[in-house]
Amino acid sequence: MTKLENISMIKEANVYFDGKVVSRTIYLEDGSRQTLGVMQAGEYTFDTNEAEIMEMMSGDLEVKLPGESEFKTLNTPESFNVPANSSFDLRVKTVTDYCCSYIVA
Amino acid sequence: MTKLENISMIKEANVYFDGKVVSRTIYLEDGSRQTLGVMQAGEYTFDTNEAEIMEMMSGDLEVKLPGESEFKTLNTPESFNVPANSSFDLRVKTVTDYCCSYIVA
Repeated sequence: MTKLENISMIKEANVYFDGKVVSRTIYLEDGSRQTLGVMQAGEYTFDTNEAEIMEMMSGDLEVKLPGESEFKTLNTPESFNVPANSSFDLRVKTVTDYCCSYIVA
Repeated sequence: MTKLENISMIKEANVYFDGKVVSRTIYLEDGSRQTLGVMQAGEYTFDTNEAEIMEMMSGDLEVKLPGESEFKTLNTPESFNVPANSSFDLRVKTVTDYCCSYIVA
């Protein structure tokens, strides 16, 4: 169990894909932004604006990263990086808990 | 949009009902505990230890409170109180965003 201290948080949830992906936005002490969310089983494509570090904390899933032609199984907890202005695909097999860190250039 | 400042948060999600109800635990500056979560459509029974204030921020749902025989439609955002050591039932029709505040006696 990890406790994040001295953060701020947007109370209202972010809801995507008809609620199958939901998250909350937090801001760490240094001002950096993260979203902590949960994905239901399903297939999703996510677009990025800023570069992201996707920390998949638990769940069974596969990722297809930009420029890749094949999905890769993740052994959670496992993270991957995604460049800005790109997209990635996920095949989520079981409920997945994640943390997305946004990397401001 | 509501921003909660100077809080701490448990990073890992709380997952209930096979992921149909998920939440994160936060601690406000005064030390009081809340969970912010999202419910998928479904019917749920929740047991309470401490007394709770359930703030249903968005979504279409009905609640049957302890001692009541009928469900009541909530017009979100709407809150209800639940005594300690009791339980309540929810009929969630659309994805519901909520905040549960735990009231320590």
